[in-house]
Amino acid sequence: MSVTAAQGFVAAGVAAGLKESGAPDLALVVNRGPSTAAAGVFTANRVKAAPVLWSEQVLKGGGVTAVVLNSGGANACTGPLGFQDTHATAEHAAGALGLNAAEIAVASTGLIGIRLPMDRLLPGVDAAAAELSAHGGERAALAIMTTDTVHKTAVAQRAGWIVGGMAKGAGMLAPGLATMLVVLTTDADLDAAALDRALRAATRTTFDRVDSDGCMSTNDTVLLLASGASGVAPDESEFTEAVTAVCDDLARQLIKDAEGASKDIRIEVVGAASEADAVEVGRSIARNNLLKCAIHGEDPNWGRVLSAIGTTSAAFEPDRLNVAINGVWVCRNGSVGEDRELVDMRFREVTITADLAAGTESAVIWTNDLTADYVHENSAYSS
Amino acid sequence: MSVTAAQGFVAAGVAAGLKESGAPDLALVVNRGPSTAAAGVFTANRVKAAPVLWSEQVLKGGGVTAVVLNSGGANACTGPLGFQDTHATAEHAAGALGLNAAEIAVASTGLIGIRLPMDRLLPGVDAAAAELSAHGGERAALAIMTTDTVHKTAVAQRAGWIVGGMAKGAGMLAPGLATMLVVLTTDADLDAAALDRALRAATRTTFDRVDSDGCMSTNDTVLLLASGASGVAPDESEFTEAVTAVCDDLARQLIKDAEGASKDIRIEVVGAASEADAVEVGRSIARNNLLKCAIHGEDPNWGRVLSAIGTTSAAFEPDRLNVAINGVWVCRNGSVGEDRELVDMRFREVTITADLAAGTESAVIWTNDLTADYVHENSAYSS
Repeated sequence: MSVTAAQGFVAAGVAAGLKESGAPDLALVVNRGPSTAAAGVFTANRVKAAPVLWSEQVLKGGGVTAVVLNSGGANACTGPLGFQDTHATAEHAAGALGLNAAEIAVASTGLIGIRLPMDRLLPGVDAAAAELSAHGGERAALAIMTTDTVHKTAVAQRAGWIVGGMAKGAGMLAPGLATMLVVLTTDADLDAAALDRALRAATRTTFDRVDSDGCMSTNDTVLLLASGASGVAPDESEFTEAVTAVCDDLARQLIKDAEGASKDIRIEVVGAASEADAVEVGRSIARNNLLKCAIHGEDPNWGRVLSAIGTTSAAFEPDRLNVAINGVWVCRNGSVGEDRELVDMRFREVTITADLAAGTESAVIWTNDLTADYVHENSAYSS
Repeated sequence: MSVTAAQGFVAAGVAAGLKESGAPDLALVVNRGPSTAAAGVFTANRVKAAPVLWSEQVLKGGGVTAVVLNSGGANACTGPLGFQDTHATAEHAAGALGLNAAEIAVASTGLIGIRLPMDRLLPGVDAAAAELSAHGGERAALAIMTTDTVHKTAVAQRAGWIVGGMAKGAGMLAPGLATMLVVLTTDADLDAAALDRALRAATRTTFDRVDSDGCMSTNDTVLLLASGASGVAPDESEFTEAVTAVCDDLARQLIKDAEGASKDIRIEVVGAASEADAVEVGRSIARNNLLKCAIHGEDPNWGRVLSAIGTTSAAFEPDRLNVAINGVWVCRNGSVGEDRELVDMRFREVTITADLAAGTESAVIWTNDLTADYVHENSAYSS
């Protein structure tokens, strides 16, 4: 499973002492090749953490031989010294692994605005390098957790090749990617350009359509590393499908583990004039705090759905809107539809279908309900 | 105080039985002239309640002789029959008051998607008409409350003329106006065009900069009625200042009474390249759930402020951003500034100053913290 499911990869996860709890907090993923092709997608936030700035540069070179990931500190908003810390991390890993620092990506997650304790992090890199193994994928996935309650891994096995991956993320999940770190590996033999196309296509309809709380992180990173060890060069559409399947699986795991959530809400926007309209409407619904509270209370409050749709610039006529909650069309033609008492909302997954009656395009956005537990988890000092 | 502070106005508030609690739920405000000039600003939500659609038409005529307001039902998403209910309300009030229905505005607040009980509402209009008095402003303000814990009124007295007003609103507060109904009255003698200019200028920097929870209502209505009874035609800038003062006072009262809130957060964006940039950044900060939770926990979490700024399109360089919380510059040049332990957040009002270091423009946005009480209040069935 995880990042070591595909041939050519070794990984490790160790406790470097970055977390006060003593839990694992440093992961290392190494691509032993023969290929080192890679692709990456990063946060759209204009305030980017040092490791994001670093890894963006690494990706421009086209090859990634290793990734160092740490929890216990985001290394964001730490100025030039923070960037030096990331650089030093890559250099140290390069020394330990006999690789070139310019091909080592770095990803960090945790509190913003605090320097990483390099006196613990660098020995942690050494410890991880010493523990690298083809069975290390699970431990690597454990080491990148922050407020996650479970570690997240996924694998898609195809004829002769594999795509595997790990992810972390539980809060601050939002468009343009969430506070999430994702490493995907494959033993398929594809060049960096093909990997980039597949990764962008996959993230566009998976991670980018997860919107737990509307808050975009400074650190989001999704990397796809290809070892070519299978010797198989799959058809690009088949490869994209497999990468999308793994991303979709991991994205769903992020939503299921979102901070304080008691409901996973699938928002299907149909009948849209364009996919962009469908996404805009879905996101607007996903970000409506009043609706998110209503779903938490198992209240099929379709008025709040219409209210959210009304704030968008999508093509629709108010008196043609239809809304179903768990399959019951509680709003038809912008007005009262079927009896809301028919809606069964006892289960964790809730589906809201918004029909704009303006075309044939559609999109799905995933979000969570808003709960007192979310507030508690995020109002604790320095959470 | 309230809408009867200015000469020429009478008002009343009664319990028509729209609310199950038996609390007052129907208000009437009548302009006895000599002038009936008026202006109005309505929700920017494209899903507009029937009374909004009606009152927009009334305002196009230029004169408003009376306003019927009800709590206990929003009459939104009720289709053509809902619009007929609003029309019937205006016609009934016209009959009771000897006025023209085309000059009677209607405003409603409460649950979306439910028809109003007209068999109770229309007798309520009669009862209110019978109780109209120059001291009825307070009772009118009480009758428009929903989840409000206090009624809201404000008055600005100037040389020879007065601007007074009432407002309701406690949740769903957002840009393009909040779920709020506001009626302002003045005995100044100004025509509809002057009133419109003053009202738009006033709301732009007051109600439009209140963003309690990012949720835009279907029913927001702000009306300004001028009786001309003072015989004074004030200078337009002086008049705009007085209307702005009353709007600002009422807007602050809305924030203070926001559902479940324990903090009132004043977000000052300074050093912006344009006022639009300042507003965009202020709103992005105001809508960041993670930050709102942090403020609730009295955590001066400036990283979440930078994170929110980073999602905007405003002009700024990440490494030049400065953030102060209650006057302590905890972030300087995009990195750690003064000791966060110096920030005192015990009091209800919290000021976040975001300096974009990109110009000389500024704006202030008001919001609230996000609390478990907000979740509870909005997750109860059909709240």
